[in-house]
Amino acid sequence: MARVHVVLVEPKYEGNVGAIARAMKNFGAADLRLVRPCPIGAEARRRAMHGLDVLEAAKRYRSYARAISGMDLVVGTSDIDTASEKKFLRIALSPRDLAAKAAALDGDVALVLGREDFGLLNEELKACDVLVTIPADPAYPILNVAQAAAILLYEIHAAKPPPEVRGRRKASAMEKEKMNEALADLLAVTNYPPHKRARTSVMFRRLMGRAEPTTWEYHALMGVLARAAKTVRRERAKQIRTRRTR
Amino acid sequence: MARVHVVLVEPKYEGNVGAIARAMKNFGAADLRLVRPCPIGAEARRRAMHGLDVLEAAKRYRSYARAISGMDLVVGTSDIDTASEKKFLRIALSPRDLAAKAAALDGDVALVLGREDFGLLNEELKACDVLVTIPADPAYPILNVAQAAAILLYEIHAAKPPPEVRGRRKASAMEKEKMNEALADLLAVTNYPPHKRARTSVMFRRLMGRAEPTTWEYHALMGVLARAAKTVRRERAKQIRTRRTR
Repeated sequence: MARVHVVLVEPKYEGNVGAIARAMKNFGAADLRLVRPCPIGAEARRRAMHGLDVLEAAKRYRSYARAISGMDLVVGTSDIDTASEKKFLRIALSPRDLAAKAAALDGDVALVLGREDFGLLNEELKACDVLVTIPADPAYPILNVAQAAAILLYEIHAAKPPPEVRGRRKASAMEKEKMNEALADLLAVTNYPPHKRARTSVMFRRLMGRAEPTTWEYHALMGVLARAAKTVRRERAKQIRTRRTR
Repeated sequence: MARVHVVLVEPKYEGNVGAIARAMKNFGAADLRLVRPCPIGAEARRRAMHGLDVLEAAKRYRSYARAISGMDLVVGTSDIDTASEKKFLRIALSPRDLAAKAAALDGDVALVLGREDFGLLNEELKACDVLVTIPADPAYPILNVAQAAAILLYEIHAAKPPPEVRGRRKASAMEKEKMNEALADLLAVTNYPPHKRARTSVMFRRLMGRAEPTTWEYHALMGVLARAAKTVRRERAKQIRTRRTR
């Protein structure tokens, strides 16, 4: 069962921050992280009710990257799901699928919620391992951020860890980072078109986020990528030696 | 599929009424009924956002009995579930069980939410056909009324059969087969230890099975694998040419 952290990026209304602290207390989450928030005052405290301790222990961050560092699974929230395959950046899980994923994970999950008016920026979404969208009426699918948080925390709380997957250790944040570096290295050494590298990296991160590889799988897959890059380098080195011996 | 009506009994904070109107709009419910509410003003309208039409069309009732008359299923909400059979009054369904019930019902469902401070009175609960309780942390199970409403409306909405199957096409069996061939080719060309090839292929197939890549993602990933194999072959071919020109 994952530990859930809530990251609010530039919240504009303190009432929402307080309401989210309350929902966290309701569903057993304790760590609230605020990235460049609005001032937090009496209205936030009033709305937090018995979640006041969560609100008062909230950590402030000037950098989004710092707020999500060390997390094993970074979950972005988006009101927009997309049927377009090219817009892979916004392909999302349902809250229930996310909850099942969190229940099976022994690690730290960051639930990232964006600004009340325009959510998370593309750059912020790119840093997420998976996205989640709450299915709603297409006529008005934009939820209040505190209600969205409550729904997601409720789903994660309601999910019970399936017994058969417990114990299998998932790859850690650091292992995932190394994996992404191995992919980037392979793209570079094979002269993969530079303008496509960023989106291929994000695509890969999302695939892995959905597949939730175990440590063993990560190592096996990284072995394939690293060996491919190494083979290319070795063949190039041979040519240089061959030329020198002419 | 039931039509969902929301009945608020003596709400004290207009902000909550507005937030509930917004959540109703998000999840396709239109009929809001207010029993002896607090004054509804600017704060409620602000919180309603695009659910303003739901808020403005809300009906006022002086009698609770009138507000629920004609409903096929009256659902009371309670923060307290009880295992005691003696306290049958508060034995409750989970939100998911309620949603399944509503999905199977062709009729009118009233979702009744009580006062922010002490909920529904016993007399009001007795008039309900079923109760629902949102499972939460026993340390603080009392949810904000608007967040509770959002969670229940979300569950009822999610139980609806999806209007159309998602347009996003999953990769086909043939595409998956080509992908596995591309991996096998890369393993061969990089002299991957032969005794490990079979299990690495299975690992990859399982990962992809869990990630369920779209067609677009398959092509992008296959591009990476194929390019790596091709780069190795090209470098080897260069060496052969280099040797021949000696």
